[in-house]
Parts: sequence; structure tokens; C-alpha cells
Amino acid sequence: MSASAPGIASHARFVSLEGGEGAGKTTVLDALREALRAGGDEVVSTREPGGTPLAEQIRGLLLDPSHEPPSAEAELLLMFAARAQHVGETIRPALERGAWVLCDRFTDSSFAYQGGGRGLDPAWIADLERRVVGVRPGLTLLLDVDVARGRERTRGRGAGPDRIEAERDEFFERVRAAYRARAAADPARFRVIDAAMPAADVAAEAVRQLQAWRGGA
Amino acid sequence: MSASAPGIASHARFVSLEGGEGAGKTTVLDALREALRAGGDEVVSTREPGGTPLAEQIRGLLLDPSHEPPSAEAELLLMFAARAQHVGETIRPALERGAWVLCDRFTDSSFAYQGGGRGLDPAWIADLERRVVGVRPGLTLLLDVDVARGRERTRGRGAGPDRIEAERDEFFERVRAAYRARAAADPARFRVIDAAMPAADVAAEAVRQLQAWRGGA
Repeated sequence: MSASAPGIASHARFVSLEGGEGAGKTTVLDALREALRAGGDEVVSTREPGGTPLAEQIRGLLLDPSHEPPSAEAELLLMFAARAQHVGETIRPALERGAWVLCDRFTDSSFAYQGGGRGLDPAWIADLERRVVGVRPGLTLLLDVDVARGRERTRGRGAGPDRIEAERDEFFERVRAAYRARAAADPARFRVIDAAMPAADVAAEAVRQLQAWRGGA
Repeated sequence: MSASAPGIASHARFVSLEGGEGAGKTTVLDALREALRAGGDEVVSTREPGGTPLAEQIRGLLLDPSHEPPSAEAELLLMFAARAQHVGETIRPALERGAWVLCDRFTDSSFAYQGGGRGLDPAWIADLERRVVGVRPGLTLLLDVDVARGRERTRGRGAGPDRIEAERDEFFERVRAAYRARAAADPARFRVIDAAMPAADVAAEAVRQLQAWRGGA
């Protein structure tokens, strides 16, 4: 555990996967999990928002379009309420017993979606990270893809869009820009992967990055 | 509308009712609503956590003991997510069309329960109030009663305790102390009513305080 920001500890066995819509996160997660398990280690594979019974219920409130939509501020607070549960109940206990934690989205998603996308103050998001999260991945793989191409891929899926997927292209352009800015500002933690490649190539590149990082960590 | 704290506006027609368990809030709310409606004005009577479809669902998550309990931090964030919805969808529109808003609990409850009761930093709660609430009641009636007496009253009710009602006496002593400290610090807004009196007397005193305040506002 090494301090990466005041009050926030970075864990070597904590890996997050980030990216916009249609970046191919699911395929990559499966490949990363398999690669880690091949080493014989325990791997906890989890996702945000979610990862505990209460946090999954909060996820339901966030994505369900049957009630009025949350304001940007309420959305941010719900995300961090779910994250507080996730860290306390699932992530921290797993790291403390020596397991790998592989997480589909983490705090960077709040900086990208609620910060970049919705325009909320990044200093506020950083304050919430410090107060209720207190931990960062040692490695974050950012699957980066052109917004139009990513969205075209999600349209190929069976289900209709959830509340956030239904946002307009400008929103996702801001999300992508925020992700890229965070990656540029923290090259020790981020690896940016070109997700325009075929899914199998993206997954292979992600596994290569993970192994290189394990070897060097 | 007059500024009562930086970034927070106080509304003359916004009245909140606060107090611990068994203080008799329901009887008082009914009496206050009737008194305000007798004047011919529109009165929106609402409650926290809750007051919109999404906020009522968040209330369900907060009080439901079927999943793991929220951490203190998650509880605070859920309360403020619900409050953000409540202010944006219900309270602000009502005040803007000139209605009275009568609210069973508001931000003072977070200072008392999550601040005093759970020990979270009051500066953080004040920051959330400024960022996502931005409005305060012009008048807050605090029903103050000895913890043992209040809890004895709630045991007389049919239903079992919800998650927060099931806390121990020391918790409610801290809640009461935080309420009294807030009232002492802001005498222009607070009226403290001795809720050890019979319910009808408490209600009559609350109506008297409201009328006196209306006359002077």
C-alpha cells in the first residue's frame, strides 16, 4: 500500500477497468479474471455501481427510468453511497485477505460521468473520494474508443438503453475527454488501450498490460 | 428570501419540524397544517427522507433492515441524495408559487442524527447543505423531550422499530444534544417546545409559535 494522494491508499492488487459505452469492458474483464486466476490467486470480480446487496439496490435506483430522474448532484451522492458500501463490505475485506480485486468501473467513472459529463465540480468529487472511499486501484485500464463507434456497438445489443446510456453524444464526448485527461495526469496508474481494435485484440492487450504491470510492481 | 448562511437562502413560508423519537411530531404536523390552511393559503405538507417518488425509494433503502446496513457515510449521502430530489422537485417549486411548505424533518436532522448521533464531521454536512440543498426553513420548531420518555412513547406504537429507531439510548442522547446546540446557535430560526407536555398542549404551543412568527415575519 503506497500513498497516491493525501488520505488515499493505492493497492497493488486492486485493478479497475474504465471506459465509455461500447468499449468492450465485459470481454476484457473475462480475460483479465482468467489471467489472474491462472496464477492461482483468489480474484474478486465486482462492478460499480453495485457490489453489495444495498449497493445493487442503489444501482437499480440509478438506472431505473420509472421514477423521476435524479439531479446531477443526487446521482453523484447515490454513486458515492454505493461506493462507500462497496469499499467497506467487499473491496477492503478482499484486499486485506490478499485477494485480487478486479472492478468494472470505480471512482474514475464519477470524475468522468458526473464530473466531465454532468459538469459537477471535480474538487467536490475529490473530497468525496477522500472522505468515503480512501482507496485507489494500483492499475487502471482505460478502454478508449471514439464515441460514435462505441455507441454503434451498444446499439447492436438486445436490451434498450438504460437512463445513462440514453444520453446524447455531446455528453459522452465530455466523458471521454475527462477520462483521457485523468489518464494523462496519472500515467503511473493508467494504461490507455485503443478499444477500436477487434474485441479479442483489446482483451489480449489488456492482459499484456496487466502482466507487464504485475512483473514491474 | 434572506441569506441566513453563505449560499443558503431562508424562506419565510418554509417551516420544518424536528425532534427525536416519540416527540409527537405527527400530532403537531396535523395541527400546523390545519392552522395554515385556515388562512386560505396552499400548504404542501411533506417529509424527509422522502417527498418525491425517487426520494421515497431512497427512504425505503435507509429504513429497510433486509440488506446490510449502510455505513454512517453512506447513510449521510443517501439522506442528501433524497434531499436534493426533494428540494428540486417538491419544495422549491412550491415556494416559488407562493405555497407554504411544512416539512417533517429537514437538514437539521442530518446534523443531529448523522452528525451528533453517528459522529460525522459537521463541516462536511454543512458543505453538502451548501452544495445540494441551498435553502433553509424560516422557522424550525424543535420538539424537545427527554430520551427515556420519548422512547417509552414509541414503544406504545403497533409496529416494530425501523433501523434507526433500533439504536441505543446513548445514540439518541447525542442526537438530542446536537439538536439543542443547533437551536441555541440559531435562535432567530428555532423555537424549542417542551414535548414532555400532553400531545394536545404541545400542538397548541406549536400553533401559537407559528402564529407569533407569522405575525412578526
